[in-house]
Amino acid sequence: MALAYDGAIQRLIDAFAGLPGIGPKGAQRIAFYLLSAGTDEVQNLSEAIAEVKLKVRFCEICGNICETSPCPICVDPRRDHSVICVVEEPKDVMSIERTREFRGVYHVLGGAINPMANVGPGDLAIAQLLERLKSDEVKEIILALDPNIEGEATVTYLGRLLSPLGLKVTRLASGLPVGSDLEYADEITLGRALSGRREV
Amino acid sequence: MALAYDGAIQRLIDAFAGLPGIGPKGAQRIAFYLLSAGTDEVQNLSEAIAEVKLKVRFCEICGNICETSPCPICVDPRRDHSVICVVEEPKDVMSIERTREFRGVYHVLGGAINPMANVGPGDLAIAQLLERLKSDEVKEIILALDPNIEGEATVTYLGRLLSPLGLKVTRLASGLPVGSDLEYADEITLGRALSGRREV
Repeated sequence: MALAYDGAIQRLIDAFAGLPGIGPKGAQRIAFYLLSAGTDEVQNLSEAIAEVKLKVRFCEICGNICETSPCPICVDPRRDHSVICVVEEPKDVMSIERTREFRGVYHVLGGAINPMANVGPGDLAIAQLLERLKSDEVKEIILALDPNIEGEATVTYLGRLLSPLGLKVTRLASGLPVGSDLEYADEITLGRALSGRREV
Repeated sequence: MALAYDGAIQRLIDAFAGLPGIGPKGAQRIAFYLLSAGTDEVQNLSEAIAEVKLKVRFCEICGNICETSPCPICVDPRRDHSVICVVEEPKDVMSIERTREFRGVYHVLGGAINPMANVGPGDLAIAQLLERLKSDEVKEIILALDPNIEGEATVTYLGRLLSPLGLKVTRLASGLPVGSDLEYADEITLGRALSGRREV
């Protein structure tokens, strides 16, 4: 009795089921979709996967992903190289770029301090950040880390490390998300919004 | 200002975002996962996708997907070739195989009658089914279609078509799912369970 599909289709289902956010049912759905999809689309997907490992690298300055190192942001003369925004992951760079509010440059740490997962300061690109502070004329460091336990620990650590260097060290504001409802805000967020209140 | 990623990674995100059940955020998550995954896993996925179109075909007898036509089920002498289970899609074959309750063979229609989507009886593999009834010594046809409007319409159509041929035509039982709660059953399902009640 055949309880698994024939070779190639089962191999495809297994390969997709190993990706984050895709379960066995979703993987089966995608496999059947690809079976009925046009050859162009299937070939495009296959090539895009093979290509990404070959072409994508990390910027030697900021640690962001790019195809040319240094990355386009680091070599852009129109950007303000005196402000460095420190983020955890390359995808955070994209999130901040989408706000269209930031004209400085970035530094990607590659994670946050997390003793439970054995990630200490030595595992992050902190030495590279200190190196940049020596050469560049940096005036401000914005710590744009995730507002969770690991991000907070990293902000505290970097704050102590960078403050004595005589540059401005800031962090993202915590408070109520725009469009949310005061009634449904958790106590910690509402507390932060209160303590960080601003004059109108 | 870079609002999309550099070439290869954006191409990968776009390719994944086009698959069913994957949104832009999920596609980005998978792309970054693949960036940090081992070369073996990435190559395996890329090859599995490219391979499936080349290797997988449809069985000339039952219409199921397979790598060799006729498929392993159609050529298996241990299976009961006098009972044909009619299903909508190849994935339904796998669902029924997993029950380990069926020892007959299959016929895949390739869909169900759906006037809203312009799918009529002529678009399904019904002529091929009638052809099989001529040559094979078939005693029973089990209509295992989805219990929705399209499936019901197809059951009704096939019932009228097949009943005059003097073979037994059955359909799957409708009723309460095993492990469910009577309180939360919808009226139609509960009504079917009542009208289809069996002696204990």
